[in-house]
Amino acid sequence: MGEVRIPYKTIKAEFERILIKNGFTSDRAGRCAEIFAANSLEGVYSHGINRFPRFIEYIQKGYVDVNGNPEIIHTAGALEQWNGNLGPGPLNAEFCTKRAMELAEQNGIGCVAIASTNHWMRAGRYGWQAAKKGFVLIAWTNTMPNTPAWGATNVKLGNNPMVFAVPFNNEAIVLDFAMTQFSYGKMEAAKMNGEMLPYPGGFNNKGELTNDPSEILDTWQALTIGYWKGAGLSLMLDILATILSAGMSTSDIGRLESEYGVSQVFVAIQLSRLKNFPSISNTIAGIIDDFKKSVPSDPQNTIRYPGERVLLVREENLKSGIPVNKNVWEEICNL
Amino acid sequence: MGEVRIPYKTIKAEFERILIKNGFTSDRAGRCAEIFAANSLEGVYSHGINRFPRFIEYIQKGYVDVNGNPEIIHTAGALEQWNGNLGPGPLNAEFCTKRAMELAEQNGIGCVAIASTNHWMRAGRYGWQAAKKGFVLIAWTNTMPNTPAWGATNVKLGNNPMVFAVPFNNEAIVLDFAMTQFSYGKMEAAKMNGEMLPYPGGFNNKGELTNDPSEILDTWQALTIGYWKGAGLSLMLDILATILSAGMSTSDIGRLESEYGVSQVFVAIQLSRLKNFPSISNTIAGIIDDFKKSVPSDPQNTIRYPGERVLLVREENLKSGIPVNKNVWEEICNL
Repeated sequence: MGEVRIPYKTIKAEFERILIKNGFTSDRAGRCAEIFAANSLEGVYSHGINRFPRFIEYIQKGYVDVNGNPEIIHTAGALEQWNGNLGPGPLNAEFCTKRAMELAEQNGIGCVAIASTNHWMRAGRYGWQAAKKGFVLIAWTNTMPNTPAWGATNVKLGNNPMVFAVPFNNEAIVLDFAMTQFSYGKMEAAKMNGEMLPYPGGFNNKGELTNDPSEILDTWQALTIGYWKGAGLSLMLDILATILSAGMSTSDIGRLESEYGVSQVFVAIQLSRLKNFPSISNTIAGIIDDFKKSVPSDPQNTIRYPGERVLLVREENLKSGIPVNKNVWEEICNL
Repeated sequence: MGEVRIPYKTIKAEFERILIKNGFTSDRAGRCAEIFAANSLEGVYSHGINRFPRFIEYIQKGYVDVNGNPEIIHTAGALEQWNGNLGPGPLNAEFCTKRAMELAEQNGIGCVAIASTNHWMRAGRYGWQAAKKGFVLIAWTNTMPNTPAWGATNVKLGNNPMVFAVPFNNEAIVLDFAMTQFSYGKMEAAKMNGEMLPYPGGFNNKGELTNDPSEILDTWQALTIGYWKGAGLSLMLDILATILSAGMSTSDIGRLESEYGVSQVFVAIQLSRLKNFPSISNTIAGIIDDFKKSVPSDPQNTIRYPGERVLLVREENLKSGIPVNKNVWEEICNL
């Protein structure tokens, strides 16, 4: 498979063109294109350029309403319930992050729960958004059912990605993780390349743990992180997203023809309101300093904190262009 | 090893006697004894009866101040920073849960962060406390360093237990989990019984994943849940507990002679303030209903939601007494 390197600006402009062609206003097209392009720039191709054609498909099928905007449903102090009106997931999530930050400015902590929104693409994006402005962010989304309960064979839980973020060094420490050990996207890529997974990623049809992505893609029995623990966390995150937003659960979404109208929660904390605010950046630096004294089991490796690699990838991709599969780029140019 | 069954009331009375003997006021002894006894009643022996002798030892060594009480340091709207004054961890945590619930009553969501507190024993306890009153609880603690960063060989991270809880059927759904796949207590028990772990629980001294608890107890390289994901989550939870409480980090605690003075965070949400409150219990019942349609890979097994087993164990132990190792019971009676 041929790969080309395309400059960030070219990719963003191309996304913008396609979004406007599909009904976005110019302002919203610019903001949405920026998110997809930045996700690619920072190395999350699965939820940047590689996902863009499907985003357009979902618009054309009516799952995503290009003009849908969040609408407030109910205020309970520092917690607000919103309806996403099936708007573009990345724009809705960016809005909710900003709104949770406003609530945290007023109340120290703020929470926004949103129903009827759409796939936010990359959870980490919203972590960076909040942390670069001095906020903590904890946020999660539910998804369609795509993995079994622990000890079960049929798909009942979502992989429900979650993000934790704190400011660090004018950048951020951002942990962005889903409840399954490997995404289906990652397993499909490994299968295509004829590679095994580095660790067991799910069960085969004999009920055994396997590193073979083909076997897992057959059973759809992806392994949740920490076995029963990640399965439990997936269930809790779904219940919370559903009840806090008054939205659809993973089970509700599973009854639709495709994944749309998901439920999300955004919790922000304003660090500047804490008593110890002046020393917080030093405290975090001290923790990272000690963390960096970890001794790698392979001396060639660097022990990295969550999000650290993003800085390196961003710099490399800004310099050399974003690596894109030739076929994907051709598909996008023809949209 | 012989096991005896001791009635809940006998165990609680015995704890109370010992706590009073060690300087607790009668009221505080009763409340603390109830927590240790209830943790045992509900099957969490490792953080109930089996841990009680060490709790007394920590009092006698001065790590736990029997008269230490939480003291408010700073208010930032719906978020408060407290100092635990090295008080008994379970009493401090019960207080913080209650205080987070009060803040959530006023603000929809409330957050209490506490520095210089002590081991809260069982995270789930505080989940049940909040959920049975109609609140969501999300809480976590840091610990001393007891597991390596992903890809590292030396211990830099805590296992940092976390709890998520929501009300359900006048009881609760409660997920109580640590960031390592198996606790050291569990691995020690497996080693004593000559058993292998059901899944790899850490690395041996050749850097290979192993199911042998002895090998892991030699290296102290316990596996974090979801490999790099749980290691990342451990780091995030430590940073958040440390900066929100202005307390000690896992790294700070690791420089002490023992584990005390930990940092904790409690976030509560008042469900009755939500617009959809009247339908929330039905919504959760619907999610659990669908979850229960999971098909077990072993037809003998029941697929259970987090905390479901607690109800069964509680009933059985109330009826037949709490199972206690004879030596442990003798040790306690001699305290």
